[in-house]
Amino acid sequence: MREFILYARKAVTSQDFALDDLPGSGGRMDLVARCVCNALWISHALRRDSCIHVVACGSPKPPLVISFYGDALRDVSPDERSIAGWIQKVLGQKRTNPGIRVRELSFQGLIQERAADGAFFYLLHERGRALGEVPLRADAVFVLGDHLGLPRNEERFVERFEHDKISVGSVSYLASQCITILHYELDRRAR
Amino acid sequence: MREFILYARKAVTSQDFALDDLPGSGGRMDLVARCVCNALWISHALRRDSCIHVVACGSPKPPLVISFYGDALRDVSPDERSIAGWIQKVLGQKRTNPGIRVRELSFQGLIQERAADGAFFYLLHERGRALGEVPLRADAVFVLGDHLGLPRNEERFVERFEHDKISVGSVSYLASQCITILHYELDRRAR
Repeated sequence: MREFILYARKAVTSQDFALDDLPGSGGRMDLVARCVCNALWISHALRRDSCIHVVACGSPKPPLVISFYGDALRDVSPDERSIAGWIQKVLGQKRTNPGIRVRELSFQGLIQERAADGAFFYLLHERGRALGEVPLRADAVFVLGDHLGLPRNEERFVERFEHDKISVGSVSYLASQCITILHYELDRRAR
Repeated sequence: MREFILYARKAVTSQDFALDDLPGSGGRMDLVARCVCNALWISHALRRDSCIHVVACGSPKPPLVISFYGDALRDVSPDERSIAGWIQKVLGQKRTNPGIRVRELSFQGLIQERAADGAFFYLLHERGRALGEVPLRADAVFVLGDHLGLPRNEERFVERFEHDKISVGSVSYLASQCITILHYELDRRAR
């Protein structure tokens, strides 16, 4: 299983956001949706071996962990509005989706949970080892920050567990692009 | 200059589409917007050395070439709705943007124009040479199909000019993900 954790500092934690304004009222829910898209979608299919946990830390009731599972997701399209619309439905408890799960859980709680399951973490970090030179474990958990980055105290928390710091290069990519690059490197090595 | 050409078979060619339904009424305008985002955006910045030409072939008056230039784009955000909203404004001649240009031009007309400027084309193709093994020209023009692929006759047209066929691997990525992977490989080699 390929697993991604996105720390979304501003992502709102209630259904009260406008689908017409994902960046503003959604607290960069557009960024969240793009990450979910790239974590789970390929052409005409879902990656059934992948999941992504979004740690939403915005108002009004943070933190929440919203997890998306490629092997169980139903009726969602890869466009930002469809993904954000599903987040809204699930947060408002209007509908359920077997591939989406919401929990009142913190970033550190999630890291502890994954570590207890034996996870090895890769922290994306601009001063990390070059991705091309790091042997990647296929079942790793990749930890990414949003446009504001991962807070230092959360980074230090991950460092308590089995981990490595990796860098995708000298360009600062969007978080969603980092996910694509990680999949690409994993796919390439799996051949 | 890094240049991308996206053949968008269904992308509508008038302002008459709903921003709330980019996949349907926009003719997969969500896909177009994701490609523009990944061609031009990185974290907190635009790629000033990149541009993307979208060949819109949907109703009512195809074909149109909508070009986006990273060095001139203003007031656009990387979310799908913002990019699609700008396409709508420009198609409706309601606003202009120095980084967006619309022309009544066909795919073949565009290829001829770029070839006349000395372009070397890379056709993304599932039976192409492995991307990792191909030396990439930094100023190349990458030609991509949408979710329906590049029509065979358009592919044959590109083959008349200086070109190579490349493959990003055995996974069928979204067109927008292919763009990210191409940038990543070019960035990696430019180091």
